[in-house]
Amino acid sequence: METLSKLRNIMKAQGIDAYIVTGADAHGSDYVTDYWKTRAWLTGFTGSAGMVVVTQDKAGLWTDGRYFLQAEKELTGTGFTLYKMEEPNVPTYQQFLKDEVPAGGRVAFDGRTLPLQSYETIRKQLKEKDAAYECALDLVGNMWSDRPAMPQQPAFAHEIKFAGLSAGEKLASVRTEMKKKEIGGYLVTALDDIAWLLNIRGNDVPFTPVVYAYAFITHAQAHVFVDPDKVRGIPLPDFTLHPYEGFINFLRNLQPKDVNGGKLYINANKANMLINETLPKSIPVNRNVNDDILPLMKAKKSDGELANIRNAYKKEGVVLVRLLMWLEAQLAAAGELTLHEGDITCKLRDLRSTMPDYIQDSFSTIAAYGANAASAHYSPGEQGAKIERDGLLLIDTGGNYMDGTTDTTRTIPVGALTDEMRRDYTLVLKGHIALAVAQFPEGTTGSQIDVLARLPLWLDGKNFRHGTGHGIGYALCVHEGPHNIAHRHNAVALTKGMLVSNEPGMYKDNHYGIRTENILCVKELEKTEYGQFYGFESLTFCPINICALDRALLTDTERTYLNAYHKATYNALAPMLTPEEQTWLKSATQEV
Amino acid sequence: METLSKLRNIMKAQGIDAYIVTGADAHGSDYVTDYWKTRAWLTGFTGSAGMVVVTQDKAGLWTDGRYFLQAEKELTGTGFTLYKMEEPNVPTYQQFLKDEVPAGGRVAFDGRTLPLQSYETIRKQLKEKDAAYECALDLVGNMWSDRPAMPQQPAFAHEIKFAGLSAGEKLASVRTEMKKKEIGGYLVTALDDIAWLLNIRGNDVPFTPVVYAYAFITHAQAHVFVDPDKVRGIPLPDFTLHPYEGFINFLRNLQPKDVNGGKLYINANKANMLINETLPKSIPVNRNVNDDILPLMKAKKSDGELANIRNAYKKEGVVLVRLLMWLEAQLAAAGELTLHEGDITCKLRDLRSTMPDYIQDSFSTIAAYGANAASAHYSPGEQGAKIERDGLLLIDTGGNYMDGTTDTTRTIPVGALTDEMRRDYTLVLKGHIALAVAQFPEGTTGSQIDVLARLPLWLDGKNFRHGTGHGIGYALCVHEGPHNIAHRHNAVALTKGMLVSNEPGMYKDNHYGIRTENILCVKELEKTEYGQFYGFESLTFCPINICALDRALLTDTERTYLNAYHKATYNALAPMLTPEEQTWLKSATQEV
Repeated sequence: METLSKLRNIMKAQGIDAYIVTGADAHGSDYVTDYWKTRAWLTGFTGSAGMVVVTQDKAGLWTDGRYFLQAEKELTGTGFTLYKMEEPNVPTYQQFLKDEVPAGGRVAFDGRTLPLQSYETIRKQLKEKDAAYECALDLVGNMWSDRPAMPQQPAFAHEIKFAGLSAGEKLASVRTEMKKKEIGGYLVTALDDIAWLLNIRGNDVPFTPVVYAYAFITHAQAHVFVDPDKVRGIPLPDFTLHPYEGFINFLRNLQPKDVNGGKLYINANKANMLINETLPKSIPVNRNVNDDILPLMKAKKSDGELANIRNAYKKEGVVLVRLLMWLEAQLAAAGELTLHEGDITCKLRDLRSTMPDYIQDSFSTIAAYGANAASAHYSPGEQGAKIERDGLLLIDTGGNYMDGTTDTTRTIPVGALTDEMRRDYTLVLKGHIALAVAQFPEGTTGSQIDVLARLPLWLDGKNFRHGTGHGIGYALCVHEGPHNIAHRHNAVALTKGMLVSNEPGMYKDNHYGIRTENILCVKELEKTEYGQFYGFESLTFCPINICALDRALLTDTERTYLNAYHKATYNALAPMLTPEEQTWLKSATQEV
Repeated sequence: METLSKLRNIMKAQGIDAYIVTGADAHGSDYVTDYWKTRAWLTGFTGSAGMVVVTQDKAGLWTDGRYFLQAEKELTGTGFTLYKMEEPNVPTYQQFLKDEVPAGGRVAFDGRTLPLQSYETIRKQLKEKDAAYECALDLVGNMWSDRPAMPQQPAFAHEIKFAGLSAGEKLASVRTEMKKKEIGGYLVTALDDIAWLLNIRGNDVPFTPVVYAYAFITHAQAHVFVDPDKVRGIPLPDFTLHPYEGFINFLRNLQPKDVNGGKLYINANKANMLINETLPKSIPVNRNVNDDILPLMKAKKSDGELANIRNAYKKEGVVLVRLLMWLEAQLAAAGELTLHEGDITCKLRDLRSTMPDYIQDSFSTIAAYGANAASAHYSPGEQGAKIERDGLLLIDTGGNYMDGTTDTTRTIPVGALTDEMRRDYTLVLKGHIALAVAQFPEGTTGSQIDVLARLPLWLDGKNFRHGTGHGIGYALCVHEGPHNIAHRHNAVALTKGMLVSNEPGMYKDNHYGIRTENILCVKELEKTEYGQFYGFESLTFCPINICALDRALLTDTERTYLNAYHKATYNALAPMLTPEEQTWLKSATQEV
C-alpha cells in the first residue's frame, strides 16, 4: 500500500493520470533478468505474465488463467486489484485505460518496456481521449532504491563447430535479404536474433543464454551495442562495437543517408516504442512484422545446426531415460513414497549436468502431479506437491546445450488409472501421431494442420486451450517464431529445417492433465507434379508410456508409427546407455 | 484492332495514359447481364474472369488458367496480348500499370465496375507515380453503339412461405446489428443481399434470380433504388422506393445527420469506387469488410429456410437420380454412343423443369468428359465433346428453386477405369467423408478444417488447386460468403445454419478430373465442459458411384459413413420415385 501511495504522489506531482508497468525488458524477452522485474517489485506478483495500470483511485493487475490463484494470494494487502484476463465482464487493460483516463489526460510508462505494437493498440483505444503520452518515465525504477544491477557475467563464443556458419556468413545472408526487401538499415532488438547472428551466447537472462545487446546493420556497416566487458576476448571482426548504453543516442543521430536510400527496418512486435520515438522523423521506416529477416533465417536450421541438434537430442534422450528409470525405481520401492514434484526438477538438472556442452535448463521444469497438471503451465516451485502412487504425473522439461535446445513432455502413470484417463491419454497420442505422420504441400502453415492434432479430442467433445506447437531455438529460446502450429492464424509456411513442437494435451479441471510432446523437424518429402511435399522427422527420442494406453483405440497406422518411433528411440539411445539401461529401454519401447 | 485504335484515339484526346476495363457490373455480381459485358465487346474474350488495361502502345488481358486456351483463340487479331495470371514472369495488371503509367500520368475507368478495394490496391501500387484518376469515364460503353439495354423483366415476390421471415422482420434484425456496430446508415450494394432482405427475386442476372437495386437503411428509414416497373405490385411496405438511376444523386446529397450520429457503412469489397467517391466527405464512413451485416445474417439459414431447403434438395435428388438412370441407359444401349456433354446440361434442365417451384439452373452445368474434366471449371458450351465408353465423366450441376439453391458434383465411370483413376476417386471420397464426419468447437473456421478434405490426397503426393467449400444462397447465388472452407485464411467461424459445399477433387492434366460434392449444413452437436461442438448434416441426396471405388482403401469409419449416407439417400428420395426408379436407387445405394 505504501509503495502504491508513493507512486500515486509522484504521478500527481507530475500530472500523470495513468501509469503503466509491463514488467518486460527492453527487448521483449520471454524471461527477464531481475533488473527488469518492476512489476513484481511494485505489486508483489511474481508470475511471468501481467500488465499493471495505476490511476489515482484504481490500481489493476491483468494476468491470465495460469496465475489467478497465485495473483490473488500475492496481491493481498497491496492495494492492487486482480483483473482476470478473458473472463466474462472483465475489461481489458486497454478498455480500463479508455474508461479511466480523462479527456486530454496524460498516460506514462517506461517506453523501453512496451513493444511498439502494444503502444499502438493503446493509442488507438484512447484516440477519442486525445491523451498525451510520456514514454521515457521509469517512475517505478526510480522509486526502487535497491534495484538489482543489470547482469554483468561474461558472454562466450558459440564456436563454429556449433554454429556451422560464421557471423560474417550470416551477415552476408542478412544483407542479401535486406536488398530484396529494400531495407537500407536493419535494427535488431531481439536478444536471440543478435546472439544467433553474432555466434555468441551469454548469461544475462534466465534459461536463455543470451546477452543484452542491440545491433544495427547497413549494407556497409554493422554495429553492435553491448557491454564491452562481456564480449572481451570474443572475436567479432565483422562488427563495430559500442557500449550498450550508447544505443539510444546513436539512434537519435541517425540520418537518412545512414540507411542508404532504403528504409530502416524495425519489427513493431519486438522493438520497444522508445526506439520508435527516438528515430529521427526524417528516416523512412518499415515496421511490418512480416518483413523481419533474422527470425525466419534462424528458424530454418542449417544442415550443420541440425547435425548438432540431433546429437543434443540424443543426450537429452539419455537424460530422460535415466529420469524415467529413477522415477520407476522410486515408485517400486517399498514403503511410503517421499517424492515431491520439485525433486524431479533437481534430478533432471543433475542428470543433464553430466552431459557434455550442457549450459542450463531451457525453462523451469513442469513436474505436475494429479490435479496440478490440469493447469497447462503449472510450475511446482521449489518443492512442489507430494507425489502419491495414484493417477498421472506430467513432466515437461528441456535443456539448453551448446548443440541444441530441447523440450519434451511425457505423462507417466504413477499408480492406478481410470478408463477416462486411459482414453484421454490415447486420444492425445492419436493427435500427436496424426501430426507426426502428416504430409503437406509447400506453402502450408501450422494453422492449416493444427486440426490434425485436435480432431481425435474434438470428436470426443474435448479440446485443449493452448497451441499445438512452437518453434524452438538453437542453444537459445525454447519458444521461437515466426512459425508455429496453432488454431490461431499464422501466415508463415512450414518449410525445410524448421523445428516445431508437437504437443497436444488434455486437461480435466481438478483431476488430471495429459500432454505428449516431441520436437519435429520439417523435412522435404516427395516432389510430384502437384509440387514439393513436406513432412516431419521426430528429433526427440524418449519412450512414450505404453502402459497408460487404451490400445483398442489405436488404428493400425498409429500402432505402426508408435512401434517405429520406439524402435528408432532404442536404436538412437542404446549406444549411450549401460546394459541395465538398455534392458529398461528395450522393455519401455516394446511393440504394442 | 479497329476498336482498339478508336479507344486509343479517345484516350489521347482526353489525355488518358491507361484505361482499365473490368467487365464487372456495378454490384460485383458473379454473373453479369449483357449490358455490362464491356470487356467481351472490346476484346472478343468471352470468359467470365478477366481484367483489361490499354495504353497507347500496349493492350493486355489478364485471366486465369481456366481460360488460357480460350483467350488465346479469342484474342487473335484483336491487338490484345494475353497475360497469364500466376504464371512465372508474368506481371500482374497492377504491376503493369506501375511499369507503364508515366509519373504524373492519368488512369481512367468506369468507377461503377471497380470495387473500392481493387481501386485501393491500384492506388497503392501507383503511389510513387503520383497519378491522377478519372473514375466516371465509361469510354468503352460510349463507343458501344449497339450496347444492350439494362434488363427490363419484372421481379417477383419471394413469398413468406419460402422466405420464412418478412422483410420487416429482417429489417429489424439489420437495425439491431447496426446499433451494435455503431452504424447509422447501411449502404447495401450486393444484389443478393438486397433480394434476401426485401424478399424479392428477379430476372436481371443469368443464373441468379436477383434485381438490379441498391438499398440504404438508417434507424428511421429504408430506401430502395430499383426500376419501379420491376417491382410494381410487389408489396414493400417497409421501404421508400426510388428509381435505380437516382442512387448516385441521392448519395451526393447525403448529410451527416442522415446517418444519425453513427457512421455510414459500405463494404469495401463489394461497393464500387464511384459510390465511395460520391459520398460527401463530411460523412464518417466505415468500410471494414468484417463489419458487414447482411452477408452473415443471410448465411445463417433460419429453421424456416432450412425446412424449405431440405425439400428443394430432395427434388434435386430426384432430378439427379433420373439423370443418372438416363445416362446409364444411354451407355447400356447397343450401338455407337451419340451422347455429347451438352446433352447432359439439356437433360438436367428438362428434368428440373418438371419440379415445382423451379426457377432456373443455378449455374452453367459442367459436364466434362475425360481430359476435359482436368480443368476444374471446364464449361462444355452448347454441344461439348462427344462422350465415349471409356474413363470418367464429371457432372457439376445445380438448380435454383424458390425453396433452395442446389449444387452437386458426381463423377461417373462411363467405361473402363485405370487403377490410378480408382485410387484417386477413392482418395477424393476419403477427403469428402473426413470433412463430412468432422466435429469441431465453436469458433472454428473453414480454413482450420480444410486440411481434412486434402490429407488423403496430400499423403499420396497430390492436391487440388481450388477451395474445398463455398457458402450457397437461398434461391440466390450458388456462391455466397462470408464463410468458406479453403486453404487460404478466412476468419469467419462456421456456425449453426450455415451451408457450405464439400467438394474435394483430383485433376490429372490431359487425363481426367474427379470431384465429389455435397452441400453440408452446420449443425449443433454436443455441448461439453470444453464448449459447444458443431458438425455437418449432408443436405444433398444423390448416390455416390460405388463402382469406381477401390474399396480396399476405405477404413471402417468411411465405409460406415458411405453406407449410412446411401441409406439416408434412399429413404429421402424413394417416396418421390417410381417403382422402377426405386429399384435402380436401391442398387446404386447398396452397402459396400
